[in-house]
Amino acid sequence: MCQLLGMNCATPTDVTFSFSGFAARGGRTDHHGDGWGIAFFEDKACRLFIDHESAATSPIAQLVKSYPIKSRNVIAHIRKATQGDIALENCHPFMRELWGRHWIFAHNGNLEGFSPRLEGWYQPVGNTDSELSFCALLEGLKTRFGTTPPSMEALFEALAELAIPISRYGTFNFLLSNGQALFAFATTRLQYVVREWPFQKAHLVDTDMEIDFSQYATPGDRVAVIATEPLTDDETWTALESGELICFQDGQPVMRKLTLSPEEQQAAWARACSPADA
Amino acid sequence: MCQLLGMNCATPTDVTFSFSGFAARGGRTDHHGDGWGIAFFEDKACRLFIDHESAATSPIAQLVKSYPIKSRNVIAHIRKATQGDIALENCHPFMRELWGRHWIFAHNGNLEGFSPRLEGWYQPVGNTDSELSFCALLEGLKTRFGTTPPSMEALFEALAELAIPISRYGTFNFLLSNGQALFAFATTRLQYVVREWPFQKAHLVDTDMEIDFSQYATPGDRVAVIATEPLTDDETWTALESGELICFQDGQPVMRKLTLSPEEQQAAWARACSPADA
Repeated sequence: MCQLLGMNCATPTDVTFSFSGFAARGGRTDHHGDGWGIAFFEDKACRLFIDHESAATSPIAQLVKSYPIKSRNVIAHIRKATQGDIALENCHPFMRELWGRHWIFAHNGNLEGFSPRLEGWYQPVGNTDSELSFCALLEGLKTRFGTTPPSMEALFEALAELAIPISRYGTFNFLLSNGQALFAFATTRLQYVVREWPFQKAHLVDTDMEIDFSQYATPGDRVAVIATEPLTDDETWTALESGELICFQDGQPVMRKLTLSPEEQQAAWARACSPADA
Repeated sequence: MCQLLGMNCATPTDVTFSFSGFAARGGRTDHHGDGWGIAFFEDKACRLFIDHESAATSPIAQLVKSYPIKSRNVIAHIRKATQGDIALENCHPFMRELWGRHWIFAHNGNLEGFSPRLEGWYQPVGNTDSELSFCALLEGLKTRFGTTPPSMEALFEALAELAIPISRYGTFNFLLSNGQALFAFATTRLQYVVREWPFQKAHLVDTDMEIDFSQYATPGDRVAVIATEPLTDDETWTALESGELICFQDGQPVMRKLTLSPEEQQAAWARACSPADA
């Protein structure tokens, strides 16, 4: 299974600390060596780095670790292939344009038998269930709202409604951003931490690295980090409930919604324990 | 005015030699320091690096110069802003998806008063005439052929027809690729060279660097390099005629078409000499 990393911030922040721990999972401390990618928004546009090499050894990952690109919305992914070959076209995050903005999507999980009829607004380039679900989400938004972007509240409600039917096909944990907000949806595994004033120290799980954020951050800073598994061992991470959608803005959750009933939550967990989702 | 670099090859080839000379024009040997970008296709997908720093000093450009990414279709661009701010969203090349493939586009020139009515299939993220013309070209293709990609011949004819009306708005030199072919269109300035067996030496204009391709290439290799101005001073470059569209495949021109009459060619050159296109 793949791993996700997201960051949403009040002020442009670099992700080098969290990415260093995260990238170690791509082939060194964990077995997600089938490609990786990271996207940094700057307003409406973004820089996207993808590579089908392991994140632990890729020269492009090395650049990202050493070159502090500041951004308010970041999404990263390391891949352990379940569906789709090990090829560049199957590396997350995926990018599309909608309403004159880039949209970035990365998925963790596995969707079995998911084959929606798409109208052709967005077509997958690779052959993963993940990119297909991204195309289905964007087509759902385009069909609902036409050529004019909705309010953030209407967008949030629409995403919650669009995510439910897809989540019935398997495990559907995703991060999505258009540069204005970062949306996190989980059927099984996503956790987040909010770092804010007064900032403290944090120590990475995956590599012996510690940082004292109070040395670098100012009272106006606030950062939400979202990941498949906690990246630090001395901070309190909050797990998303099964079926929960959270909208992060300015480094904190601003909207949250539970989309699944207790029975549906149980079904989601049961699917996650099937061998296909290893 | 911006500068373009394209490479189309019979076998995956790295572009580090040509890019080294080209990147020097981004702020060192020339004044195109308002951002740059490069896209490398791997089959249907591509890696896209963009940066609003100067290509001569950007750490990402440094990585591209030192990390030989092999590709059969490459498009690069260095920017001297005419329309649009110096922002990431205005850095070429631009990327969109059409028919389950990535498409990459970069433009050199300036289109005055170009404001087509778009249906909403593709919307510009930034505010350049260049990205708008890319959206117009793709919408034209989508409107013509629907959700099924046409033959290469039909695609070539359609591009020629779609480029003509846009070219009337100013200077319209562009490179476009979907990973299967590289299309070059010029109203004023584009030149190309084909390197093939027996390979020879080449010396860069912009930096004192020479390479003997016969030491590296094999008889099956063939590479077409397309650029705004010749990158080498000891090879024979061929200039595109005004209004000419060329389709490159397997490292050579496979289709070419003249779209402008002699009068229209003269008008294109007259527009290019206006101050807005400096």
